[in-house]
Amino acid sequence: MKVVITGGAGFLGRRLARRVLEIGHLTAPSGASEPIDELVLFDVSEPSEAISADGVAVRTVTGDIGDRGTVFDLIDRDDISVFHLASIVSGGGERDFDLAMRVNLDGGRHLLEAVRARVGMPRFVFASSLAVFGGAAMPTSVGDATKHTPQTTYGITKAILELLVNDYTRKGYLDGRSARLPTVIVRPGKPNAAASSFVSGVIREPLNGIDFTLPVPETTSVAVLGYRAIVDGLIHLHELDGERIGDDRGVGLPSLTVTVNEMIEALRRVAGTRRLGDITVDLDPFIRDVVESWPTVCASERAAKLGFPNEQDLDEIIRYFIKDYVEE
Amino acid sequence: MKVVITGGAGFLGRRLARRVLEIGHLTAPSGASEPIDELVLFDVSEPSEAISADGVAVRTVTGDIGDRGTVFDLIDRDDISVFHLASIVSGGGERDFDLAMRVNLDGGRHLLEAVRARVGMPRFVFASSLAVFGGAAMPTSVGDATKHTPQTTYGITKAILELLVNDYTRKGYLDGRSARLPTVIVRPGKPNAAASSFVSGVIREPLNGIDFTLPVPETTSVAVLGYRAIVDGLIHLHELDGERIGDDRGVGLPSLTVTVNEMIEALRRVAGTRRLGDITVDLDPFIRDVVESWPTVCASERAAKLGFPNEQDLDEIIRYFIKDYVEE
Repeated sequence: MKVVITGGAGFLGRRLARRVLEIGHLTAPSGASEPIDELVLFDVSEPSEAISADGVAVRTVTGDIGDRGTVFDLIDRDDISVFHLASIVSGGGERDFDLAMRVNLDGGRHLLEAVRARVGMPRFVFASSLAVFGGAAMPTSVGDATKHTPQTTYGITKAILELLVNDYTRKGYLDGRSARLPTVIVRPGKPNAAASSFVSGVIREPLNGIDFTLPVPETTSVAVLGYRAIVDGLIHLHELDGERIGDDRGVGLPSLTVTVNEMIEALRRVAGTRRLGDITVDLDPFIRDVVESWPTVCASERAAKLGFPNEQDLDEIIRYFIKDYVEE
Repeated sequence: MKVVITGGAGFLGRRLARRVLEIGHLTAPSGASEPIDELVLFDVSEPSEAISADGVAVRTVTGDIGDRGTVFDLIDRDDISVFHLASIVSGGGERDFDLAMRVNLDGGRHLLEAVRARVGMPRFVFASSLAVFGGAAMPTSVGDATKHTPQTTYGITKAILELLVNDYTRKGYLDGRSARLPTVIVRPGKPNAAASSFVSGVIREPLNGIDFTLPVPETTSVAVLGYRAIVDGLIHLHELDGERIGDDRGVGLPSLTVTVNEMIEALRRVAGTRRLGDITVDLDPFIRDVVESWPTVCASERAAKLGFPNEQDLDEIIRYFIKDYVEE
C-alpha cells in the first residue's frame, strides 16, 4: 500500500515517515495489514534530509496544497492512507488570514475530495490542534466533549477540518480520524512562525549554548507532548478500529500541563554539567495573547480508553531530545 | 442604508423583508440607526409575491450564491447589512453533498468575503440551525456551550459558517452574529425537501382540508419556534450591542419542545369546528433518522439574558398561522 504524508518535509512529518517505514505496514482499505511499498512526503519545500527504506519507493513531492490538481495527483491509488499534517501555523495564520484559508481549509478540502474519489474507504488521519479551544466560553479543563471556540484563524481551520473529517466519514467517503495535538516538544532546528515556537526554544536553544529570550512570563502554563508520543499517537489513531472511535472522530491526545518554569527546571536537571545558554524574558504581547487563548489542562480519559501511548515526564522528553538531536 | 437578504424568495426571507421594511431602519456600520433606502432579496428564483415599501428601492436578484462575482455584486455599498438565510436544506443536503458544500459553504464564504471587502464593519446575521447538534456525544439538553457534532451535511455547513462568522468578527472584517434556529412552524405553501417539512405539514395540510401522512411516529419530539418569533429574533440579534454577545457570536434562539402528538392536539383545539384533513402515519426511515439526530431540549438562558423575544405557546402559533395564511 501507499502512504502519503502532507507536511512531510516538516519535523513531525519526517519523524512520522521514519516511524511508519520502521513498522513497515499499516491497515489498508481492505481491512488487512498490508506492507508499505510507496511513501510520499508532500510539502511546499524539499525535506532537509533523505529518507529511505529497503523495498519502499520513498518520494518527496513539492507543490501547493491549495492547488486541486496537485493534490489529486498525489492520491493515485486505492490502497492508500493519508496523514494530513500540512498547515500554516498559528502565528503565520494570524499574520496572513487568506493564506491560512487557502492552505488549511481549501487544501484540506482538496485532499478529502481526492481521497473520496478513490474506490474503498482509505484511512485519513488529520493532525488537529488544541488551538480549536479558546475564548471566554472555554472551561478550565478541555476534553473531547468541549465546544470548539478557537481564537486564531489556525484554530478555526483546524476545527472546520475536524467537522469535515467527521462528515466525509459519516457519508462513507473515507475513514477519517482527527488527533488534537498539544504543543509538540522539543522541536529541533530553528525557531518558526508558530506562536508556540518558544516552548521548544526555551529547551533547545540553551542546550545548544545559545541565549534565549522568552516572549511570555515564566509562569505561563502550556499543554505539551513529546514528539515520540505524538508520532506513536498518530499511528495508533490510524490503526484503531473505527467502531471504537464512534461518530465524533476527533480525539485529544494525552498531554502534560507544565509551566515554562518547570520546563526550565527540568532542563537544568537533565543538562547536568552542560553549559546552557542564558534565559531572559522580553514579553511579546502578540505571542502572549495567542498562547493565553490556548487551554492548559486537557482531560484525556477517552484517549486512555482508546489505548493511546502514555506520555513520559518532562525529564524523559528532554533526555530523548538530547539523544536524538543534540550533538555530544 | 442597504439590506441584503439571501434566501430572500423563501418563506422566512420574505417575512423578514416585510418586517424590516415595517421597522424602516437598522443599526448601520456607523453605529447609528439609519433609514433603509434599499433592500435586495437574493435567491435562486424569484419570490412568489412582490414586496414594496414607500421610499425604499426593493429589488429581487436571482443567481447562484456559489458564484463569487454574483455575490460580490450584491454587496456594493459600505452602509449595508446582510441577513444570510440562503441554504440547501437538511434533506436536500443529504441527497446532494456537493450542492450543499457549494451553496452552504462556498456561498457563505463568498458572502463573508464580499462584506469583508467593504469599508467599516457591516453587520452580518447568519441563520444557523439546531442541526449543528447530534450524534452519540449530544447531551439531552443542548445550549450555547454544547459542542457542535452535526449528523447531516446541512448541519456541518451550518457549524462551519458559525466558526467563520466568529473568526471574521474576531479579525474585525465584519460584525457577525449567528442565530441557531429550531424548526420553524408553521410554514405555508407546499412541503419541501427539508427533513423537518412534516413539522409544519402536520398542521398546515389538515387545516387546508388535505389528508397528511406523517413520516415519523406521533411520539417524536421536536424543538420548534413560530415564524414571528424567529423573524423578530433575527432582527433583535442584528440590533444587539456586539459587546454583550462576546467572542462566541452564535446564540440559540428560544424554542418550545413539543411532541407531534401535542401539535396535533393543539391543532384540534384551535381549529374548533373547521373540517381537518386526516392524519395517518407511514414511517419514512430516512426522515426519521435525520430528525432523531436533532436535539429536542434547548437551554436558552443566554438568549433570555440577551432579551430575545419569548415564544408563544403552540395554540398561539397556530392561531397566527390561521390569521396569516389560511383562507377564511
